[in-house]
Amino acid sequence: MSFKSFDELAAACTGLPAGSEAAAAAVARRQATLTKPQGSLGRLEDIAAWLARWQGRDMPSLDKVKVIVFAGSHGVTKQGVSAFPAEVTQQMVANFAGGGAAINQLSRIAGAELSVIPLEVALPTGDFTQTLAMDEQDFLAAVSTGYDAVTDGTDLICFGEMGIGNTTAAAAIAAALFGGETGGWVGRGTGVDDAGLQRKVIAIDKGLARHEALLASPLRAAAALGGRELAAIMGATLAARHKAVPVLLDGFVCTAAVAPLQKLDPTGLDHVLAAHVSAEAGHRGLLKALELDPLFDLGMRLGEGSGACLAINIVRSALECHRGMASFAEAGVSEG
Amino acid sequence: MSFKSFDELAAACTGLPAGSEAAAAAVARRQATLTKPQGSLGRLEDIAAWLARWQGRDMPSLDKVKVIVFAGSHGVTKQGVSAFPAEVTQQMVANFAGGGAAINQLSRIAGAELSVIPLEVALPTGDFTQTLAMDEQDFLAAVSTGYDAVTDGTDLICFGEMGIGNTTAAAAIAAALFGGETGGWVGRGTGVDDAGLQRKVIAIDKGLARHEALLASPLRAAAALGGRELAAIMGATLAARHKAVPVLLDGFVCTAAVAPLQKLDPTGLDHVLAAHVSAEAGHRGLLKALELDPLFDLGMRLGEGSGACLAINIVRSALECHRGMASFAEAGVSEG
Repeated sequence: MSFKSFDELAAACTGLPAGSEAAAAAVARRQATLTKPQGSLGRLEDIAAWLARWQGRDMPSLDKVKVIVFAGSHGVTKQGVSAFPAEVTQQMVANFAGGGAAINQLSRIAGAELSVIPLEVALPTGDFTQTLAMDEQDFLAAVSTGYDAVTDGTDLICFGEMGIGNTTAAAAIAAALFGGETGGWVGRGTGVDDAGLQRKVIAIDKGLARHEALLASPLRAAAALGGRELAAIMGATLAARHKAVPVLLDGFVCTAAVAPLQKLDPTGLDHVLAAHVSAEAGHRGLLKALELDPLFDLGMRLGEGSGACLAINIVRSALECHRGMASFAEAGVSEG
Repeated sequence: MSFKSFDELAAACTGLPAGSEAAAAAVARRQATLTKPQGSLGRLEDIAAWLARWQGRDMPSLDKVKVIVFAGSHGVTKQGVSAFPAEVTQQMVANFAGGGAAINQLSRIAGAELSVIPLEVALPTGDFTQTLAMDEQDFLAAVSTGYDAVTDGTDLICFGEMGIGNTTAAAAIAAALFGGETGGWVGRGTGVDDAGLQRKVIAIDKGLARHEALLASPLRAAAALGGRELAAIMGATLAARHKAVPVLLDGFVCTAAVAPLQKLDPTGLDHVLAAHVSAEAGHRGLLKALELDPLFDLGMRLGEGSGACLAINIVRSALECHRGMASFAEAGVSEG
C-alpha cells in the first residue's frame, strides 16, 4: 500500500468492513451448550465471540499470532521531555535484535512471532514545538509501512512501539483530538521528574498553539505532533481491519496512535481489544474517551507491546475453552 | 500427614516458615539492572520477587506447575440453594476425567499438570442448618488429604473446587469469620434466581445460629459450615507453605476456604497471590478483608480453579522477563 495523500488515507479509514455477526452469533450459541453455568467464563466468552466476529469464521484460530514493534526517533526530545537520552531508541532496536528486551521474552512465552520495524531511526522527526513532526509524505510513508506489515492470514496481532520522547507525542495527539487540560494527558513516561513533566506540558502547549490550524483533521494532527512509529501503528491497525485480523491494543502510545481511526469512523476500533490500562497517567482517560474497556491493570508502563503481548494468553485461553469444552449433552451433565 | 485434632492442626497453622528475604532482595537487585525503566513492568516485577521469596531461591523456576481440583458434596443443597441439581458434582468429576471441562483446557494452555481429587462425593456433608457439616474427624481427614496432595518440588500450584452448593458453604464461613450482613456474602453461584438467593441467606443465618458456640474457632467454624473440598484446599494451602510452594488463589470458594489460615496466623496467606476477583458477589469484600489484591477482574465465576489457572501465564511472563532480559551493561543501552 502506498497512500498518496491525507485525503486518500482518510477515505480508506471510512466505510470499513463490518465483522461477521453470524460468526459471533455461532459462538454465543455454542457457549450456551458448554458445561459451565451460563456466562460464568465472563469476558472469556466475549473474547471468543470477538475473535470469531473479526476473523469472520465460526471457529476462530490462533495458529499465527504476531507482535510487531515499530521504532521511531523524536525531534521533541530536544525539549528535555525524557528521562533517557534519544540514542536509547537505536540501542533498544539492537537489544530487540539480540533478544534481550522484555518483549522478546513475552512474545516467546505467548507463542507469538516477533518482528521489529525501525522507521528511519537515525533521522528524528521535526521538533513539533518548532515545525511539523512529519510532512504529509513522511507521515504517509510511515502509515504505508505499517499497513504493509500486516499480512493476510494472521490470526491475531499486537503492535508495540519504541521511541524515546513518544509519550510526549502521544499526549500531544490525545490533547489535540480530545481537548481538556494538557496536564491530564501527560505522564512520566520512562520516568521524568516533576521538572521534566512540566517541560512536557510546555512543549505540548507550544505544539498545539503552533499547529492549531491543522488540529481539526485527525490525520494532519497526527502528522504534525506524532511520530513515525505511531503513524505506522495506525496504518497497521487500519490494515488489520481490512485484512480480518483482530488487534490487541497495548498502552498509552499505541492508544493515542490509533485514536484518529475512531475519530474518522466511529467503528474504526471495533476490531481492537484493549489489553490493559497502563500506569502512564493519560491512558485511563484516553481509553475512556475511546470507550475501550481494558482486560487488566498490572501497573505496567514499558511499551514495546508488552501489555498487549501479555493478553495473548487470555485470548488463547478463551478460544481453548470455547473449542475444547464438552457440551452438557456430550458430558452427560444435568443442566440447571 | 494425618491431623488428629483441631488443636494439632491449629498448631501447624502458626509459627509458619517465613519466605526468603534474601531471594526477594536478589530479584529486586537484578530487576534494577534490566533494560527497562525502573518499575515499568509493574506487578510483574513484584511477582518475580514473590516467586523467589516463597520458592526460597534467587532464580525461581516454573518447570513443575500443578492444578488440583477438589470435589465435594454438600448436604445444604437440600435447602434449595443451587441452580443445579446436586448430582452435577459427580457428573463434573467425570467431565474432568474426560477432558471436557473449562479447567482441562485452561491447565493445558497454562502448561500445568491437572489432577482431580474427589472427596467422598457420594456422601454429602451434613446439612449445616440441621447439624455439623463435618465432625472433627471428617474435617481433619479432608484437610489431611489436601495436605498430602502437595508434593515437594512443585514450583507453583493452583487449587480449584467443584461442589454444587459450595458458594453457600463459603459464604457461611465468610460470615462466621468476618461478620457483617449475611446478604453481603451471598451471591448467585451457578445462577440462582432471587428466591434462591433468599434461600441461601436464610440457610446461612440458620447455620450461624445453630453453630454459634463454635464460631470463635476458625477451624471449628470451617468444619461446621464448610465442605470437604474447602477443608482440603485449606490443608493444601497450608502444606504449600511448609513445602515452599507459592500458591495462586482462585475465586470466592477458594478464598473462603483459606481464610481460616489468616485468622490463625496473620502471615498465613503471605505465600498466596490472589489471581482474580470473581463475579460472585462476596468475593471482592472477602479479598479486601484478607488484604489480598487480585491481578485481574474478567467477570469470571466458574470455579474449578479457572481464574487461578489463567494467572499462571502472568507468573510465567514475569519470570521469563526477569530471567531472560539483558542488563543495560550487557545490551549497551544507556541508563536514564
